[in-house]
Amino acid sequence: MVLGTTFVLAFVPASAVVGILFALSQWYIVSKISVGRKPVSNNGYMHVDEDGIDNSSVDEKVAEIQSAISEGSEAFLTTMYTYLAIFMGLFSVIIFVFLASVGGFSFDRQPCDYDQTKSCPSSIASAFFSTVAFILGALTSTLSGYLGMKIATYANARTTLEARKGVGKAFAIAFRSGAVMGFLLAANGLLVLFLTILVFKLYFGDDWVGLYEAITGYGLGGSSVALFGRVGGGIYTKAADVGADLVGKVEQNIPEDDPRNPAVIADNVGDNVGDIAGMGADLFGSFAESTCAALVVSSISSFGNDKNFVAMQLVISTVLMTVAIFLISWFGLPETFTINVVGHEAKVVKNWHIFFCVGSGLWAGLIIGFVTEYFTSNAYTPVQDVADSCRTGAATNIIFGLALGYKSVIVPVFAIAVAIYLSFSLAAMYGIAVAALGMLSTLATGLAIDAYGPISDNAGGIAEMAGMSHEVRERTDALDAAGNTTAAIGKGFAIGSAALVSLALFGAYVSRAGIASVDVIQPKEFVGLIVGAMLPYWFSAMTMKSVGKAALAMVEEVRRQFRTIPGLMEGTTKPDYKRCVKISTDASLKEMIPPGALVMLTPLIVGTLFGVETLAGLLAGALVSGVQIAISASNTGGAWDNAKKYIEAGASEHAKSLGPKGSDAHKAAVIGDTVGDPLKDTSGPSLNILIKLMAVESLVFAPFFAANGGWLFRQ
Amino acid sequence: MVLGTTFVLAFVPASAVVGILFALSQWYIVSKISVGRKPVSNNGYMHVDEDGIDNSSVDEKVAEIQSAISEGSEAFLTTMYTYLAIFMGLFSVIIFVFLASVGGFSFDRQPCDYDQTKSCPSSIASAFFSTVAFILGALTSTLSGYLGMKIATYANARTTLEARKGVGKAFAIAFRSGAVMGFLLAANGLLVLFLTILVFKLYFGDDWVGLYEAITGYGLGGSSVALFGRVGGGIYTKAADVGADLVGKVEQNIPEDDPRNPAVIADNVGDNVGDIAGMGADLFGSFAESTCAALVVSSISSFGNDKNFVAMQLVISTVLMTVAIFLISWFGLPETFTINVVGHEAKVVKNWHIFFCVGSGLWAGLIIGFVTEYFTSNAYTPVQDVADSCRTGAATNIIFGLALGYKSVIVPVFAIAVAIYLSFSLAAMYGIAVAALGMLSTLATGLAIDAYGPISDNAGGIAEMAGMSHEVRERTDALDAAGNTTAAIGKGFAIGSAALVSLALFGAYVSRAGIASVDVIQPKEFVGLIVGAMLPYWFSAMTMKSVGKAALAMVEEVRRQFRTIPGLMEGTTKPDYKRCVKISTDASLKEMIPPGALVMLTPLIVGTLFGVETLAGLLAGALVSGVQIAISASNTGGAWDNAKKYIEAGASEHAKSLGPKGSDAHKAAVIGDTVGDPLKDTSGPSLNILIKLMAVESLVFAPFFAANGGWLFRQ
Repeated sequence: MVLGTTFVLAFVPASAVVGILFALSQWYIVSKISVGRKPVSNNGYMHVDEDGIDNSSVDEKVAEIQSAISEGSEAFLTTMYTYLAIFMGLFSVIIFVFLASVGGFSFDRQPCDYDQTKSCPSSIASAFFSTVAFILGALTSTLSGYLGMKIATYANARTTLEARKGVGKAFAIAFRSGAVMGFLLAANGLLVLFLTILVFKLYFGDDWVGLYEAITGYGLGGSSVALFGRVGGGIYTKAADVGADLVGKVEQNIPEDDPRNPAVIADNVGDNVGDIAGMGADLFGSFAESTCAALVVSSISSFGNDKNFVAMQLVISTVLMTVAIFLISWFGLPETFTINVVGHEAKVVKNWHIFFCVGSGLWAGLIIGFVTEYFTSNAYTPVQDVADSCRTGAATNIIFGLALGYKSVIVPVFAIAVAIYLSFSLAAMYGIAVAALGMLSTLATGLAIDAYGPISDNAGGIAEMAGMSHEVRERTDALDAAGNTTAAIGKGFAIGSAALVSLALFGAYVSRAGIASVDVIQPKEFVGLIVGAMLPYWFSAMTMKSVGKAALAMVEEVRRQFRTIPGLMEGTTKPDYKRCVKISTDASLKEMIPPGALVMLTPLIVGTLFGVETLAGLLAGALVSGVQIAISASNTGGAWDNAKKYIEAGASEHAKSLGPKGSDAHKAAVIGDTVGDPLKDTSGPSLNILIKLMAVESLVFAPFFAANGGWLFRQ
Repeated sequence: MVLGTTFVLAFVPASAVVGILFALSQWYIVSKISVGRKPVSNNGYMHVDEDGIDNSSVDEKVAEIQSAISEGSEAFLTTMYTYLAIFMGLFSVIIFVFLASVGGFSFDRQPCDYDQTKSCPSSIASAFFSTVAFILGALTSTLSGYLGMKIATYANARTTLEARKGVGKAFAIAFRSGAVMGFLLAANGLLVLFLTILVFKLYFGDDWVGLYEAITGYGLGGSSVALFGRVGGGIYTKAADVGADLVGKVEQNIPEDDPRNPAVIADNVGDNVGDIAGMGADLFGSFAESTCAALVVSSISSFGNDKNFVAMQLVISTVLMTVAIFLISWFGLPETFTINVVGHEAKVVKNWHIFFCVGSGLWAGLIIGFVTEYFTSNAYTPVQDVADSCRTGAATNIIFGLALGYKSVIVPVFAIAVAIYLSFSLAAMYGIAVAALGMLSTLATGLAIDAYGPISDNAGGIAEMAGMSHEVRERTDALDAAGNTTAAIGKGFAIGSAALVSLALFGAYVSRAGIASVDVIQPKEFVGLIVGAMLPYWFSAMTMKSVGKAALAMVEEVRRQFRTIPGLMEGTTKPDYKRCVKISTDASLKEMIPPGALVMLTPLIVGTLFGVETLAGLLAGALVSGVQIAISASNTGGAWDNAKKYIEAGASEHAKSLGPKGSDAHKAAVIGDTVGDPLKDTSGPSLNILIKLMAVESLVFAPFFAANGGWLFRQ
């Protein structure tokens, strides 16, 4: 290996700092647009916008709405993080006690697993560092989600204001804000991880295996917060969205985001806490886990003896992030863009094998992206077929949509399978870990691009609520629609990389737990496999039912307000927004606990009661089953959404024959879109956290399960 | 073992003959009701029914409708079987060539695998016997489906006529006909299998391994026909059903089965070719495969040396069938029944281990039955919640229904897992094979009970079309509704036993292919696992899309007839039934090929190109993933159906608040019911054939794959 330690020591943090500085510079540009108090312009006259109208009353309204959204988001996240703090505290204790118990809570240094002649840190010390890493990961993830929300609520009103000047300016602001988020989170994650390794190294010395095993706690902490963020935020946003649409659009025939709708503020808050904060935490979790997987796998694989090599994947991550940064900067300029070009540039790593592994991940991601676009964009026949099936009503729409989702799984799974086979053949489990990193390098780009979708969505909501002209709304809608396909592509990358990361973590777990093989023809493993394949269904049942229940409560409340508040429909009285915010908040905080507990406790229970073999089977089952449901759920939802948009836009003869808004076919399409909401924004994206989290948790607890697990099968 | 060969030789065929005789006696009772030509009654007067009206014109109408349904069903099955004959012929050639190629097409006897000092049949001979067994299995399955259809079309009109006298008499006829079907198929399958073994034994002599390996062809033949029967019949019946309902009930507001609806005959034909003939072939396939699995596993396991033991599971099957026969006879008397009592009586086999294995299968089946009832009967909260969610429209109904289906997977999978662990621990793969037989013993009962559901459905259709009084229709509806939950329970048993059978076949395949372990941490196996887990999605996408497309075509045709045929709505002109029959026929024949080919070709392609390890992973993945989709699909569909019925019946205050028919909530429920149709009657039930068929096919071709497979991975 040509890369020396000094180089790594300098390059990694430098890149992180560059990333943070770049993010701050973008933020500075965004911040130049002021919301609320209009500055007196240079010539001393009152500021007048390009459309020639004095908009100062509208400006004030925008500021008011923005602060309502911002306060709602902040209140929700603060409450959620308080709950999470308690949970994380308890889980830290579990990690410490379980891991320390492996060595009988001894402070004595012990012979190393990899070399019995050397001495390694005591089990108490290992447990302590794993716990610290867990807490650091959780805190960094929390910070990522919080920062994401702050950036988004900062950007939404500014995007609205810029939309008055044209779609290009609005895009620039929304996109810059997305870039701020992508960079800040990636750089922040990298920096914390790097510093943690540096500090831990002071204690661990040359014990790279012990060091990186402790570091996996970082991935676990990051993913745990991501899970609750995704589930809680997902329930919040979809309860408000579904509830607002069912009464507002379907029953009362008022437009989306109409200020008369009592659920409208909750809906906009949801975009920020679900789509943004949840996604931020998720992005950080993916990064943390795949880096941890690469570290651990390399430390326990045959490469492990060369510590320069071991440190190399930090450089790989960094280089890939850098490439992503360049791509974002480059993409930041044009108004239209295709994500398909991404991925050809990353020929950085010289080692031929590793390059091929990264490449296989990138290419698999690219194929998944293409397929996702094909199945969810209304430019192609699948979505048009779904739209066409609305002719005969909602039932055929649902049947066609579900079939589309199932079908969309085929090619991505083949792509993942080929990437796995290639990268495993070249560099075993390490190859799979770097393939995951390869796929994630574009994920960072993709997700940064994604972020502008919800920001534009919010901007449109603010425009509607502030009573701006229709043109402004049309511009933000255009941005939002463009973001739909990239969002689906981003989800495709997320699940593809989750599959690779989980497999790498699974491989690391198998090594660390000391299992010779995961032979699914044996009853312990097979039982784990079939139960594992069931878990994503259990999890989806919980999250979908939660959204359904919360949406029902929201519908009842919105209906009640329309019924009992006089003058609401006429626009002379304001609705009670806060009650709707409270319904979403309460529902999501209460409902995120069971699915979260399912994911967090299953590996602990199975490992402790049934042992390492059954847990291995369980991880494999959850992985292969979860991938299918996640892909089909997000594509089905995306296709329904765009089939509806296809009919609404009426851009072709065919689309016109189905529309316009309010036609029977359109009503059928709205039903499909509503069903798709929890599929694509709650269950689907949470499932990739499920498979990663169970794998990383099993890896962290592997020594405990190996030493003390399998109570039920002992004689 | 206490059971001697003589006993087996006498007991098995004797039981089969008793079963056939019993079936014939029941048929005789049913046949005493005459359709069409009314006999002059004893006192010389014209026959007058209990309601005091001379119904002779109605009687003629009934006969006319029955013959239309019967002709339609026969025409469709004849066409389908012609297609299948071509396919089976081709596949026979493949089996023969592939298997004969293993030994280089040699006629020389070869040393036995299990004992190199003995001489075993040549590969040409083995290939020949496998092919013959395949053809026999296919023929028996074809006969089963055809007989089932004949019985059902014979019984439907008679049930209608008896329904005029009361619900009890109608039930007796429908139920007796179901029993005829259950017995005739089980006894027939047993007899053919027994005779085949006897004849083959003349050639194979003491080579039990070779004999039973050749016999697996019987299971493959049976399942292949079952697959096409289920898929083809399922597409036929649901295209007609969905198409008829969408225009008739939703758009034209005419009742179900109204003779003015052009798709009404196709709908009734569909019940016979899909629900009856498909189910008959499926039932036979399950029986054939589980018996073959038990035979093969025992012959290659350590028990294999004791040929009395080897023969014993034929006795087990027979005894279990006998128990089933007794239970059916016993259950045949009361008007109401619960399937839950089944399974306690089967303490026949004395061997403690085997008994426990059978018991674990029975109990797992029982639990699955309970859970299915809980999730699909409108007496419990899950379906009531789904019905309640219709208040807010079709979207929440769909969300709740999907969540219910996902949730309903949890307990059955645990039950299957426990049964697998227990029976494997006690008697390895043989334990799992007899656990499957245990579950199937009640399946025979359950399916016999099931058969009366479609018969009553048809009877109701005939009553409606013949213009009988509303009371008659209400009576047949009551029978149909009672059959709904038993149908779902039957499907639960079917998928549970399919999981066990597939696992046993999978185990046999692994042995026969000479694989030491199926280690899913290896890339070949893992790639197979994840692609296998995808296959049920691919298959479901195909079948659901097929139903959707065919239903769209049907809707267009029905709309066209209502638009262009003057006097149709007024009832003065007859619709063109034949065109609708043709649409369903053409669609199902064309659309059954791709999903059928997917299932039949995948093991061949994967085994040949990627080798035995990847195929092993594929089987495991398809098994654990298919079980989940099959259970959730059939329960989601059942729940939607019963939620709709719950609102229609209005039996409680809650139900009344949602109804009546035609209310918004009811319309939402109809949409759910329509979406559920292809899920519960096309995709779901076909999936258990998918997992069994791929396993038995892999088992048949295992020697070829082991010798010549894996081309792509060779250097």
